[in-house]
Amino acid sequence: MAAGKRVSQMRTIIVGAVAGGMSAATRLRRLDPTADIVVFERGNHVSYANCGLPYHVGGVITDREALLLQTPASLRARFDLDVRVRTEVVAIDRARQVVRVREVDGGREHEEGYDRLVLSPGAAPIVPDLPGIERAFTLRTVTDADRLTTVLADRQPRTAVVVGGGFIGLESAENLRRRGLAVSLVELDTQVLAPLDPEMVSPVHAELRRHGVALHLGAALTKVLPDAVELAGGQILSADLVLLAIGVRPETTLALAAGLTIGPRGGITVDASMRTNDPHIYAIGDAVEKTDRIGAEPALIPLANTANRQGRLAADAITGKTVTLSRRLGTAIVQIFDLTVAVTGWNEKRLRAAGRTYQAIHTHPASHAGYYPGAQPMSLKLLFDPHDRRILGAQAVGGEGVDKRIDVLATAIHAGLTADELADLELAYAPAFGSAKDPINMLGYIADNLLTDGQRTLQWHELSGALAAGAALVDVRTPAEHAAGHIPGSINLPLDDLRHRLDELPTGDLIVYCQVGQRGHTATALLTGLNRRATNLDGGYRTWHAGQGSDDSAAL
Amino acid sequence: MAAGKRVSQMRTIIVGAVAGGMSAATRLRRLDPTADIVVFERGNHVSYANCGLPYHVGGVITDREALLLQTPASLRARFDLDVRVRTEVVAIDRARQVVRVREVDGGREHEEGYDRLVLSPGAAPIVPDLPGIERAFTLRTVTDADRLTTVLADRQPRTAVVVGGGFIGLESAENLRRRGLAVSLVELDTQVLAPLDPEMVSPVHAELRRHGVALHLGAALTKVLPDAVELAGGQILSADLVLLAIGVRPETTLALAAGLTIGPRGGITVDASMRTNDPHIYAIGDAVEKTDRIGAEPALIPLANTANRQGRLAADAITGKTVTLSRRLGTAIVQIFDLTVAVTGWNEKRLRAAGRTYQAIHTHPASHAGYYPGAQPMSLKLLFDPHDRRILGAQAVGGEGVDKRIDVLATAIHAGLTADELADLELAYAPAFGSAKDPINMLGYIADNLLTDGQRTLQWHELSGALAAGAALVDVRTPAEHAAGHIPGSINLPLDDLRHRLDELPTGDLIVYCQVGQRGHTATALLTGLNRRATNLDGGYRTWHAGQGSDDSAAL
Ligand SMILES: Cc1cc2nc3c(=O)[nH]c(=O)nc-3n(C[C@H](O)[C@H](O)[C@H](O)COP(=O)(O)OP(=O)(O)OC[C@H]3O[C@@H](n4cnc5c(N)ncnc54)[C@H](O)[C@@H]3O)c2cc1C
Ligand SMILES: Cc1cc2nc3c(=O)[nH]c(=O)nc-3n(C[C@H](O)[C@H](O)[C@H](O)COP(=O)(O)OP(=O)(O)OC[C@H]3O[C@@H](n4cnc5c(N)ncnc54)[C@H](O)[C@@H]3O)c2cc1C
Ligand SMILES: CC(C)(COP(=O)(O)OP(=O)(O)OC[C@H]1O[C@@H](n2cnc3c(N)ncnc32)[C@H](O)[C@@H]1OP(=O)(O)O)[C@@H](O)C(=O)NCCC(=O)NCCS
Ligand SMILES: CC(C)(COP(=O)(O)OP(=O)(O)OC[C@H]1O[C@@H](n2cnc3c(N)ncnc32)[C@H](O)[C@@H]1OP(=O)(O)O)[C@@H](O)C(=O)NCCC(=O)NCCS
Repeated sequence: MAAGKRVSQMRTIIVGAVAGGMSAATRLRRLDPTADIVVFERGNHVSYANCGLPYHVGGVITDREALLLQTPASLRARFDLDVRVRTEVVAIDRARQVVRVREVDGGREHEEGYDRLVLSPGAAPIVPDLPGIERAFTLRTVTDADRLTTVLADRQPRTAVVVGGGFIGLESAENLRRRGLAVSLVELDTQVLAPLDPEMVSPVHAELRRHGVALHLGAALTKVLPDAVELAGGQILSADLVLLAIGVRPETTLALAAGLTIGPRGGITVDASMRTNDPHIYAIGDAVEKTDRIGAEPALIPLANTANRQGRLAADAITGKTVTLSRRLGTAIVQIFDLTVAVTGWNEKRLRAAGRTYQAIHTHPASHAGYYPGAQPMSLKLLFDPHDRRILGAQAVGGEGVDKRIDVLATAIHAGLTADELADLELAYAPAFGSAKDPINMLGYIADNLLTDGQRTLQWHELSGALAAGAALVDVRTPAEHAAGHIPGSINLPLDDLRHRLDELPTGDLIVYCQVGQRGHTATALLTGLNRRATNLDGGYRTWHAGQGSDDSAAL
Repeated sequence: MAAGKRVSQMRTIIVGAVAGGMSAATRLRRLDPTADIVVFERGNHVSYANCGLPYHVGGVITDREALLLQTPASLRARFDLDVRVRTEVVAIDRARQVVRVREVDGGREHEEGYDRLVLSPGAAPIVPDLPGIERAFTLRTVTDADRLTTVLADRQPRTAVVVGGGFIGLESAENLRRRGLAVSLVELDTQVLAPLDPEMVSPVHAELRRHGVALHLGAALTKVLPDAVELAGGQILSADLVLLAIGVRPETTLALAAGLTIGPRGGITVDASMRTNDPHIYAIGDAVEKTDRIGAEPALIPLANTANRQGRLAADAITGKTVTLSRRLGTAIVQIFDLTVAVTGWNEKRLRAAGRTYQAIHTHPASHAGYYPGAQPMSLKLLFDPHDRRILGAQAVGGEGVDKRIDVLATAIHAGLTADELADLELAYAPAFGSAKDPINMLGYIADNLLTDGQRTLQWHELSGALAAGAALVDVRTPAEHAAGHIPGSINLPLDDLRHRLDELPTGDLIVYCQVGQRGHTATALLTGLNRRATNLDGGYRTWHAGQGSDDSAAL
């Protein structure tokens, strides 16, 4: 901007008219009723709910218009915004502060000058260079969804292959099942949902299979054939429809060409006020790198909450306010048939890969008091730093109440609460909503036992090593539970008998386990108090068993 | 304890075998496998779910045994605890460190010595001294619930009067309706649920009436007749059954007689490690005063979360650990037919009465993205300190997601987050669970507008004063919305036309409003930017309208 130019005389150009871009535009308008604001969008639609697209394809959101939160006309009426669709920004001339725009229809080009430029071009689905790949669909825009719904209606496909087991891949698989297709899911990794650690993902695999999704894990797509796909190794999967969802990469074409700095993760580099290395150019949303909260390193967090947040902050920054985007956690959630999966912060795989010190807790609480009907099981995992006690991440898989627990934990991490402090939270309790000790409080109690009392626990993937080193394994569940399934090599000595049958215990180190870890905790406390060296198997049989479901613990 | 006595040689006596007492006992056992622990309970049952009692009476929890989480036998087996039911502690001799106990059956008395004494005697329903009151039931124990279910089965009452519109009163009213009785609710205050401010309670009154509960607000019970009750003013309400739920008072008989300090709120005074003025005596749960988080003053918080927390901390303290109960918020929740109500921290009435400076925000968000089916409306109220920006309290009324939002806010208050910082929280978003800007983020955005941008809002109860002082009132909703109901004296100028019809606006101060406050915010921003003095009616027509439903705003 020319020095001294008043904000209200400034011209701001925004590239991309969805989550980030449009949030910036509307906020800027509220901050300045007369500023000149132009928004360019190369697609057909603006302000739409990308996140709803899979559910529109599946027929859950029947009204397509419900996805279009605004139109250029409504944005003109309400916010006096000049929003031009089917208009692509094809180049930025930073020296002259102009962008070159091309009309998608006809290809006419012209230039538009700016005082401030905001880039919110989003991300593009990754499309690998494979034979036949042009037949594959992707799902990013309303136009993509329209294409899919048309094909579903017109060609009545009966089989589908979804490639990629991330959030969008799973939502797509579910919604294609909803439309009656036979769905195969192909995933290169040995598990779907990379944000989950292997023992947490087992119920997700089971849920997908239960709903008729054929899982092909550790499988590489090599070819798209006319009515099938081929996997490495030669397996052929029938596929009237192929949907690619193997991830997105930041849309940086414009930024790169204009010489803006691109970061190590492939996104545009911005400072905490969303400014690129050009002081007149801001960038936001999926296209940019944020700073990770746990690692303080650059991270892509291609999520709507952050895109919206950044849009508003960029507008604030343009009007001269001092703003700072807080470091990002990447809290995310996905519905998978009757299961909900939510995560925040880092997982164990990542902590381990980064060489961080951490401790893990697994629990399997009920969504609300067990004595009140309708409680649903859930599995929770908490990761924290044993030195400063801070929470590093959490994962939850279950039904009702999964979103609540992860939101509370995301808030706790944001605020820097320690793991043991979770015991102190006063969470709303009535029988239909939680427990007197909420699952979150319980995580705090367990953390306190580890951190303050020095109680020993062992992780599911450490068990075989400990047994090999000579420890004895004691199942403190009831004989009926033991008979229904137990860890090989364990002796059964129920908790309620333990005190009177101490002499039946093997000598040496003891590892005790129960179903979820709770009785194991009481057993460990008792044995430790009696001067036995006892360790509780964290998360009990259930976590151990889920860990066996994962292809191998080496993934950790 | 005799100096130098090892913990494991100590004898701990616990009075009261439910939430607080039994949590102390089990924890103490885990910390010390050989300590001598005796628990006295004058009632018939231990470790039971008081919170489930109304739902057992209503037939929701059909299995009575489900309420009894433990029995003396199971506690003996698992925790080696000596739990004696139907045994009342009738006196404490502090000098000699003995308690006198009386067997309820037969009345035999004897003494038991202690090194440490833990009092968790709970609270007793308040029973006013009124003619005929002995016919009224109360609901605190399993025995109370048994009495009620027997009467319901044997005498088939058709009409019931519930006295008291607090949490237990409302749960009881709902459950008696469930059993088919015609229920009248009598409440002295002009509203039920005192923790809610008057404009927040309107939907609760509507919900109760919708489900056939006859509300008698501002009504005093004067007499219980053989088949009816009489109210001040002479009104007679038919009542085959009368249930009293006008509150509880801390059970301090023992403590008082023993010369333990009682605080200003009528509960036993303890320090942050749950110790009374006698270093050998701890007290926990409903019987004791806690320290309020917002006011730092003594407070009763008769809730299960805190009773359980204190039980564990008392055990820790007894074994010599340094413990501190954090200051209490009193987060609470109640289901009222299809409505959920949850609160944390202080309400506006209390802030005002205490002369605290505060600011209020009302919103009416959907539980999740509006474009995804099944979103339910909710009303949220946030109170914060405009100076240090800290959150002081929150209220939520609605359906799905009310518990989640209050739990996040309770966590935020606990952690000392500021109101505007709520905008930064990364809460789990997928269309079925929230919004890209979660209702919690939105509260943060609105707070930021007030705190940082100095945007002006007006509360529903301030409107008539502002209008009397000469401000003009502008309804920026659509003509259809205006026609369907508007605030008297307002002119209608839809937001989307505002920019072009500025000349139709009256001169002088403007107050704008919309349905929930959001369009009013954009209108206010526009007008302020154009140098008009404009103020947004916080919470819009919906909050204003709800405020009119309350008997009078003088309640604030
Ligand atoms: C199917 C799907 C489901 C999702 N589900 C969730 C979810 O449940 N939760 C969640 O948090 N997030 C979800 N997301 C992610 C979320 O939608 C994105 O994080 C968010 O939309 C990013 O906003 P943005 O403004 O950065 O980019 P976008 O919303 O993608 O907008 C970028 C726009 O810029 C336009 N554009 C790009 N380059 C140019 C150019 N040169 N000229 C003009 N226009 C240009 C594009 O056409 C596009 O419309 C989902 C995404 C998809 C695709
Ligand atoms: C109907 C109902 C619904 C509730 N709903 C909720 C809810 O939804 N959420 C929530 O958080 N809280 C709820 N509560 C409150 C919760 O139950 C209490 O906060 C909690 O039980 C308090 O624990 P406590 O150990 O202090 O007292 P209590 O649980 O009441 O236990 C005290 C015990 O001490 C015994 N006792 C007293 N004096 C003596 C003596 N001298 N000798 C021997 N024994 C003695 C009593 O018989 C009693 O069994 C509800 C309570 C009731 C009654
Ligand atoms: C909707 C969109 C156009 C932005 O419009 P917007 O008006 O800025 O945003 P919202 O409708 O969310 O409203 C937020 C504004 O209303 C205010 N507000 C909300 N409720 C309010 C209330 N009850 N009282 C007062 N103000 C309120 C907020 O403070 C905020 O204003 P601010 O930014 O000036 O603080 C843009 O976010 C968008 O295009 N979204 C759809 C795309 C998308 O997000 N996709 C990914 C997810 S599916
Ligand atoms: C149930 C009751 C007897 C307490 O028993 P308890 O064993 O102390 O408590 P819980 O069953 O809740 O279990 C909590 C313990 O298990 C541990 N635990 C829970 N899940 C665990 C897991 N998965 N792995 C390891 N440990 C676990 C906790 O850390 C805690 O142990 P700690 O106190 O040593 O840290 C007592 O609270 C009671 O009587 N409750 C019913 C009455 C009541 O609360 N009424 C009011 C509400 S309706």
